[in-house]
Amino acid sequence: MTAALPLPTLDTATADFLAQFHAETGRPGLGTRLAHVAAHGFTPTPEELAFAARVAWRNSTRCVGRLPWRALEVRDLRDVTEPGEVFARLLEHLRDAFAGGAIRPLISVFAPGVRVLNPQLIRYAGYRNADGTVTGDPANVTLTDFLRSLGWGGGPGMAFDVLPLAIQSGRRVELFELPADTVQEVPISHPECPGIGDLGVKWHALPVISDMALNVGGVRLACAFNGWYVQTEIAARNLADDDRYNLLPRVAAALGLDTRRERTLWRDRALVELNVAVLESFAAAGVKIVDHHTVTRQFTRFEARETRAGRDVRGRWSWLIPPMSPATTPVWHRGYDDRELAPNFERLPAPWDAPVRPGGCPFH
Amino acid sequence: MTAALPLPTLDTATADFLAQFHAETGRPGLGTRLAHVAAHGFTPTPEELAFAARVAWRNSTRCVGRLPWRALEVRDLRDVTEPGEVFARLLEHLRDAFAGGAIRPLISVFAPGVRVLNPQLIRYAGYRNADGTVTGDPANVTLTDFLRSLGWGGGPGMAFDVLPLAIQSGRRVELFELPADTVQEVPISHPECPGIGDLGVKWHALPVISDMALNVGGVRLACAFNGWYVQTEIAARNLADDDRYNLLPRVAAALGLDTRRERTLWRDRALVELNVAVLESFAAAGVKIVDHHTVTRQFTRFEARETRAGRDVRGRWSWLIPPMSPATTPVWHRGYDDRELAPNFERLPAPWDAPVRPGGCPFH
Ligand code: HEM
Ligand code: HEM
Repeated sequence: MTAALPLPTLDTATADFLAQFHAETGRPGLGTRLAHVAAHGFTPTPEELAFAARVAWRNSTRCVGRLPWRALEVRDLRDVTEPGEVFARLLEHLRDAFAGGAIRPLISVFAPGVRVLNPQLIRYAGYRNADGTVTGDPANVTLTDFLRSLGWGGGPGMAFDVLPLAIQSGRRVELFELPADTVQEVPISHPECPGIGDLGVKWHALPVISDMALNVGGVRLACAFNGWYVQTEIAARNLADDDRYNLLPRVAAALGLDTRRERTLWRDRALVELNVAVLESFAAAGVKIVDHHTVTRQFTRFEARETRAGRDVRGRWSWLIPPMSPATTPVWHRGYDDRELAPNFERLPAPWDAPVRPGGCPFH
Repeated sequence: MTAALPLPTLDTATADFLAQFHAETGRPGLGTRLAHVAAHGFTPTPEELAFAARVAWRNSTRCVGRLPWRALEVRDLRDVTEPGEVFARLLEHLRDAFAGGAIRPLISVFAPGVRVLNPQLIRYAGYRNADGTVTGDPANVTLTDFLRSLGWGGGPGMAFDVLPLAIQSGRRVELFELPADTVQEVPISHPECPGIGDLGVKWHALPVISDMALNVGGVRLACAFNGWYVQTEIAARNLADDDRYNLLPRVAAALGLDTRRERTLWRDRALVELNVAVLESFAAAGVKIVDHHTVTRQFTRFEARETRAGRDVRGRWSWLIPPMSPATTPVWHRGYDDRELAPNFERLPAPWDAPVRPGGCPFH
């Protein structure tokens, strides 16, 4: 690097990222690259993008699944801008990520201006009924209303109606229904308690987050990424929370528990058996999933590896601990520094919270 | 209050405390009191002490049991300095707090210079064996060694040997054995699984913290205080942690669970049944205890009451959430400001960490 480099015209986030990329990968040519970017602006190369995506995962303070961060498969979709083509590539993402049940961690990175408006690729509708109750997933009532406002006609009105995708490109937004074969689902039953299977509960195999942007040296690109589930996400939150599917009372009834007194710990017993049901059902269906004991142990291996590599591990304790029996896992007993590192993922504002542009709808 | 008051000679912590005491209790005479304290120094009155103790409990960010903070019974032991007499008053504390099983929240506040060196009045010995294992409570190995260094001859060497109290007054430290009738214990058994009762586990009824000082307007007084247990403290930490009594594998064996695979969630199942055992055993023995669902609901009532009283509720989320099924309780879904308010309790340094005074032992 020479003193003549026009560094001051470079964004420091960009310069820091490029320096990190060259330092960690051992690639030569940082000076040339900096000069080029200073002169022409920063468009990440495919290698820089892939590096940024993997390191963003490694830096995700709220993610307990970071051990295999190097194995993240990165799809660079920056040349895809037609909503219909974006949709086609997302279907590929869903099929390839599912991988017949083996589940591969995968990220698709979009062009500037392209974005999926759903927070995850697969979400179940939440229909608000006249009496105030909700059919489906109460977490998705606003999303469901939003998709209706974009022209969705509504689904069959059941508990697990998969919502269509709203894909934005520039000012255009288009809706797409996910074909059934791209939405793999696992019916939930319990090896010893048939009453739990009789509840008719299922969940989708793939959690694909689609409302975060990858920040690569100051350039923000919307993306969609997935790993596999920890069963607690499904069974201790999505199906259990009283403002979600609220199944603990019905699971307790199926188990024949005495729900009149807290002291029987019927909530805790129902919770454990619902978690067993999800783990056993995914295993029986041949769909990869990890339990909270195993994933937290893997996380301590990730910490040890990072420390050996001379890197700090950042973490948000309140997200890393599992929502059941947390003190039986190693993360409970550790402390974490929660300051964020770059590159990273950043949550995008919900489209229904976005300011409406003067003159009408934000999308047209 | 007049401009002539010698306020600047007062410690601000003292002035703030006195202002709060007069404002909250509605007592007149703040100006006179401040003038008196400025001239003669601050010795809390019995009323100020009692107020400080209750408000310190109300301010305890890590305590989920704060709803009945106004009912705290305060014993002012500032006239007691002989170790033997301090011990006699602690026996009264233990008997009156137990109250035949009804358990009353009680605090005994000591004279300056007086302190109990044990972290809690009732603690089980931890004996390090030649092979590195521990008999008893591994959390108390250092305490046990420390008490031996003060001349304790050791107990029977069982899993639940109650440790003697080390009471310090000035530079004197004396040891006292707790009479059996002051240490009420509950044998733990399970209503449906006799194998759990066969483990021969028990726990004491009263958690009495004795290693914190009450900070009253800058004056620090060692004290001992108790409430009743949340069963998770006993069954999800003391008996379950792998660096405490580590009972989950033995409970799982008693329950006949398959411990070869994590996926059976045997740890979680054993944890729930151990918690049921503790709750049911305390109930059967007529000893007050609260479950984590009830106490967290009570905590939200405390929050609502404090808000109505125009006061901020401070809290440390990581301590307020219970160590089992935390997401099924309301505190999981709330955020808390963890900055401390005065008056408050402050942890005293462990006596074995205290710097040794020049010339020898810190106590003689
Ligand atoms: C491979 C398996 C993976 C597992 C088991 C896993 C596990 C988890 C869990 C349990 C959470 C907390 C979710 C919640 O409480 O809502 C989480 C959050 C997160 N994970 Fe992972 N993860 C995996 C893969 C990934 C991948 C591939 C990425 C990105 C490339 C990623 C990035 C994140 C981020 C950014 C969050 C925070 C999400 C938010 O703020 O809503 N994870 N992960
Ligand atoms: C009345 C019943 C009570 C219940 C159910 C209760 C519950 C709890 C629980 C579960 C903890 C966390 C303990 C841990 O994880 O180690 C705690 C901590 C604490 N409580 Fe309470 N508590 C009660 C009474 C009291 C009283 C009477 C006081 C003081 C006057 C008090 C002051 C504190 C303090 C200072 C802590 C933090 C202790 C530390 O840092 O080790 N509590 N309480």
